[in-house]
Amino acid sequence: MGRTLFGPADRTQTQLKPWIGRSMSRFSQRLKAASQRTHGCLCVGLDVDLSKMPAGLPKDGQGALHFCRSIIEATRDLAVAYKPNMAFFESLGAGGFEVMERLRQSVPQDTLFVLDAKRGDIGNTSQAYAKAYYDLLKCDGITLAPYMGKDSIEPFLDYPDTCSFVLCLTSNPSSADFQFQELKSGGKLYEKVAQEAVGWARGKKGEVGLVVGATQTQALKDLRRRVPDTPFLVPGVGTQGGDLAGVLKEGRSQDGFGLLVNVSRQVIYASQDNNFAEAARDAAKKLTDEMKPYFS
Amino acid sequence: MGRTLFGPADRTQTQLKPWIGRSMSRFSQRLKAASQRTHGCLCVGLDVDLSKMPAGLPKDGQGALHFCRSIIEATRDLAVAYKPNMAFFESLGAGGFEVMERLRQSVPQDTLFVLDAKRGDIGNTSQAYAKAYYDLLKCDGITLAPYMGKDSIEPFLDYPDTCSFVLCLTSNPSSADFQFQELKSGGKLYEKVAQEAVGWARGKKGEVGLVVGATQTQALKDLRRRVPDTPFLVPGVGTQGGDLAGVLKEGRSQDGFGLLVNVSRQVIYASQDNNFAEAARDAAKKLTDEMKPYFS
Repeated sequence: MGRTLFGPADRTQTQLKPWIGRSMSRFSQRLKAASQRTHGCLCVGLDVDLSKMPAGLPKDGQGALHFCRSIIEATRDLAVAYKPNMAFFESLGAGGFEVMERLRQSVPQDTLFVLDAKRGDIGNTSQAYAKAYYDLLKCDGITLAPYMGKDSIEPFLDYPDTCSFVLCLTSNPSSADFQFQELKSGGKLYEKVAQEAVGWARGKKGEVGLVVGATQTQALKDLRRRVPDTPFLVPGVGTQGGDLAGVLKEGRSQDGFGLLVNVSRQVIYASQDNNFAEAARDAAKKLTDEMKPYFS
Repeated sequence: MGRTLFGPADRTQTQLKPWIGRSMSRFSQRLKAASQRTHGCLCVGLDVDLSKMPAGLPKDGQGALHFCRSIIEATRDLAVAYKPNMAFFESLGAGGFEVMERLRQSVPQDTLFVLDAKRGDIGNTSQAYAKAYYDLLKCDGITLAPYMGKDSIEPFLDYPDTCSFVLCLTSNPSSADFQFQELKSGGKLYEKVAQEAVGWARGKKGEVGLVVGATQTQALKDLRRRVPDTPFLVPGVGTQGGDLAGVLKEGRSQDGFGLLVNVSRQVIYASQDNNFAEAARDAAKKLTDEMKPYFS
């Protein structure tokens, strides 16, 4: 009791016993190939808020689809992945899922399609979510919420070649409410989540990744030492103020890849005018230029 | 440090300082009226798994809608609420949201419509979910996941006459993975979630409720002592093995209401034959007969 899972900051990596999950799956192999292709790890977040879309586009599903397709077309040689957030498509109402299906078909084969959905429910219900997103929508990855524990995540791990990203340390200010709670058994809640989640992938068809916000570089660094091989999906760079250089330096996995840095608003809303796609490309290029030294 | 939030089991209620949220809103008033009307607190969970529907119904959205409408028609004088789980509608693909919209229109005015969705995301994204479910779908309540903290829940509380049920203590076996973690600051994680979540409702238009599983009667009893006025949505009775008598005795709020006991599979799959609606009614009647002494 009172023992911390993490050692002091100056403890060397070899003294820490890593939390090992499973060996590299096809998802990680594809991520590595995409990183080599783009010399980066940029995940473009498609958070399509109709009220923020360029003035010239219709504020409906068709407009949203055109907007996303234009962004994809303009950034496809720069992005390793696209990450639409399901919330914005659900807020379109009955047509939202179809817009998402058509969007999915627009994502190039050499780019990963990660759905931000933050789902998680009891076993038979998580099975239904997994069917919706891995089977019908053919996502490569999906984000999941950990509060209900292992049996709420396991149904997602039955799908080969996928990576289920469990929320660990999020980038929003209120992440401190629960994720930073110190546990009597040692460490903080987000560390316990990381430790458990990585183990859930053992013997499964699908991989487990972690969502680790860019706004806490030290925590990300410490976490990477404990899970050297787990893919990290890192939100919070850009509008939310996360430190890109720190993430690139500390967030990659042992083989130098295993990292998706998501940027949403800073890229997709770079311009409110008709030149929005070129402006998105310019913003994405600026980010990948900063990534290049780490992926060359 | 080391102090527990909860006192020992024999401490009297007056010695515990309750965690107070906000005064009773229209949601709670409607729940009370529905409990008085039905002499019960039965929430029928519409977890429409196509593979479990009666053999005679088509295994598609139309079939699912017909199934749900038949169950509602057969149980409307017995139920205080209907709780469809969004997962099963999403697993229908592109037509799922429309089926949900049509289902929503089939729910009687004097019955509450609570959507089980377990959503929760950063602020602007939670706004989009809140729009989808409180604005477009006109839900009376929705379930939410707490891991991301206050700012992930607040956008839902901008909608008057609603109740946002935050996951606190769930009924699945893996709830122990994180929810029962002992915190250094005292108490368990689910208690901290309850304490924080109840406070989020202060000064807001919408109410906060808690999801508290029936499978842990003692924890539910302890929790009720600390949040005497907060609506509890209690899953886990029926197929999951929760103790109905214990929940009825310990789970009601201070005024004798404030409780929704959800039963899904035991009611809606009571029969696989054409008599499924009558069988659902019989199963619901058996449950409300057990509830009657507590709501008369």
